[in-house]
Amino acid sequence: MGTNVAIAGATGAVGQEFVRILEEREFPSDTITFLASHRSAGKEITFRGQTHTIQELTEESFAGVDLALFSAGGSVSKRFAPIAVDAGTVVVDNSSAFRMEPDVPLVVPEINAADIAGHKGIIANPNCSTIIMNVAVWPLHRINPVRRIVMATYQAVSGIGAAAMAELAESTRASLEGRPYEQTQIPHPAAFNVWSHGSEIGEDGYNMEERKTWRETRKIFHCDEIRVTATCIRVPVMRAHCEAINLEFTEPMTEDQVRQALADAPGVKIVDDRERNHFPMPIEASGQDDILVGRIRQDVSQPDGRGIDLFVSGDQLRKGAALNAVQIAEHLVK
Amino acid sequence: MGTNVAIAGATGAVGQEFVRILEEREFPSDTITFLASHRSAGKEITFRGQTHTIQELTEESFAGVDLALFSAGGSVSKRFAPIAVDAGTVVVDNSSAFRMEPDVPLVVPEINAADIAGHKGIIANPNCSTIIMNVAVWPLHRINPVRRIVMATYQAVSGIGAAAMAELAESTRASLEGRPYEQTQIPHPAAFNVWSHGSEIGEDGYNMEERKTWRETRKIFHCDEIRVTATCIRVPVMRAHCEAINLEFTEPMTEDQVRQALADAPGVKIVDDRERNHFPMPIEASGQDDILVGRIRQDVSQPDGRGIDLFVSGDQLRKGAALNAVQIAEHLVK
Repeated sequence: MGTNVAIAGATGAVGQEFVRILEEREFPSDTITFLASHRSAGKEITFRGQTHTIQELTEESFAGVDLALFSAGGSVSKRFAPIAVDAGTVVVDNSSAFRMEPDVPLVVPEINAADIAGHKGIIANPNCSTIIMNVAVWPLHRINPVRRIVMATYQAVSGIGAAAMAELAESTRASLEGRPYEQTQIPHPAAFNVWSHGSEIGEDGYNMEERKTWRETRKIFHCDEIRVTATCIRVPVMRAHCEAINLEFTEPMTEDQVRQALADAPGVKIVDDRERNHFPMPIEASGQDDILVGRIRQDVSQPDGRGIDLFVSGDQLRKGAALNAVQIAEHLVK
Repeated sequence: MGTNVAIAGATGAVGQEFVRILEEREFPSDTITFLASHRSAGKEITFRGQTHTIQELTEESFAGVDLALFSAGGSVSKRFAPIAVDAGTVVVDNSSAFRMEPDVPLVVPEINAADIAGHKGIIANPNCSTIIMNVAVWPLHRINPVRRIVMATYQAVSGIGAAAMAELAESTRASLEGRPYEQTQIPHPAAFNVWSHGSEIGEDGYNMEERKTWRETRKIFHCDEIRVTATCIRVPVMRAHCEAINLEFTEPMTEDQVRQALADAPGVKIVDDRERNHFPMPIEASGQDDILVGRIRQDVSQPDGRGIDLFVSGDQLRKGAALNAVQIAEHLVK
């Protein structure tokens, strides 16, 4: 395929990360177009030392575009991705709009890059919490199928957007100064607080973020048997998520087997220094491509040796979003 | 028993909370003595409108003292609690020094107040994370024994001490201003970060905080069969802990059964508004006596209906420490 590239949602938290990652990885592009809402159109963006003017995303934006990276929210994707496909563009979509469509590959390249080939114009990028968990769990699942996962997340506010990151800083500053502060992006007081993920809650009591962890994992792993329960929680952190992951395997699994499998796994870095009490932290995962994995230990509550506990951290904006999408795009242009 | 009371460790985060709670609950006391290290001796403390001078904790501090509340760390308890007992004082100890001694009751009054009667001079106050989890889980365990718990914690820095709370504020202020800041209390960067609990890690990879969750729970519940795995994590929060708790029961358990059992349970407040996405948060648990319990739902990963997920929050300094100890003391003087 050709490499006339468009970024839809260029000014958001993920969009800005697209720009940085395309530069860093020297992504091959003949032309690049930055698209955003009417409000952001006309603003300028620097890419590879050149200034580009952001254009308004319209139905005419995709003429001659070979590849579009979308990160402008589900409703924008639903409206414009089919238009782009009709114009001959291949879309890598970061929203949840198409993830569960049977003819849309849902891809974490380290796991199921082969699925990309089956696309009909749209390839979906999974949910951030799911990607981060999957990168750590897949190398283990490959050698000893995981039956059940119990996960609790510690999610950064970057997932709400760039404005929420600024709001966390401002509301924390206000809290330290004893000033009131009216938040508009984050639904609960953010300063020195922890709160449940704000996505819609179904009748079964799970929110949408939690639901994605099992739906998407089953599709990515090609494994309908894997069972997941998750509690998705926000913490006052800027941009990397953490996850406490409890795994139940089909066969007994030792800590050494886990270490060996993870040591060779792409996209994983083991950070597990018990003596110095140094384990994955969002402040160290931020800006990194790898998912940090630590607190690796046999689960004492599973006397048959089939349990393993982990604690992981990964950059929500990079591997949890923009990096994963760019990796998919790299497979497309290869 | 008489009610000449001493507080050992009066200037710490828990010690200050002892003072407030004894006042609030109008604890009956004929005399009260505030004890602390040599460094703090001579400082003044206001209690029920009267000024008291803090005295140095020495081997002679317990003459005529009927009841002593200790919260000055394990080594102080190890040294001075036996001296107090020899002087005829009953000690309620907040440290981990005596918790697992067979002849020391380990008590959460809502659960096993009856154990207090068997004391030989020392009654131990459980670990904060364990108390908070136990208050929420016991009302369920009573009606349908819990076989296994998978827990992930979101722990406030108050557990490290009063100086750590000040350090979280100061290091966050520095971070917002782009200044470097040298922490002395908190072992990892605290501002906008999450890090693994700093207690010593054993050969099995669990830290001491995690180990307490199963050891102490078994003793408090009088149930050696209950299995627990925990991942204990610090978050940049001042004084209330949160916990994501996954429960596996002996028999199937419905969400309604859980709600009913918790609605009547002492020390529990249900905060579970799905429509408003309002659930337990440390900012709302702080200063409260009750453990807030929410995100109550049937665990989708347990198809036989034996799984329940919860998210709870409780004030680490109150029910997690000082309040629980004062409740024990109230039983003693009753």
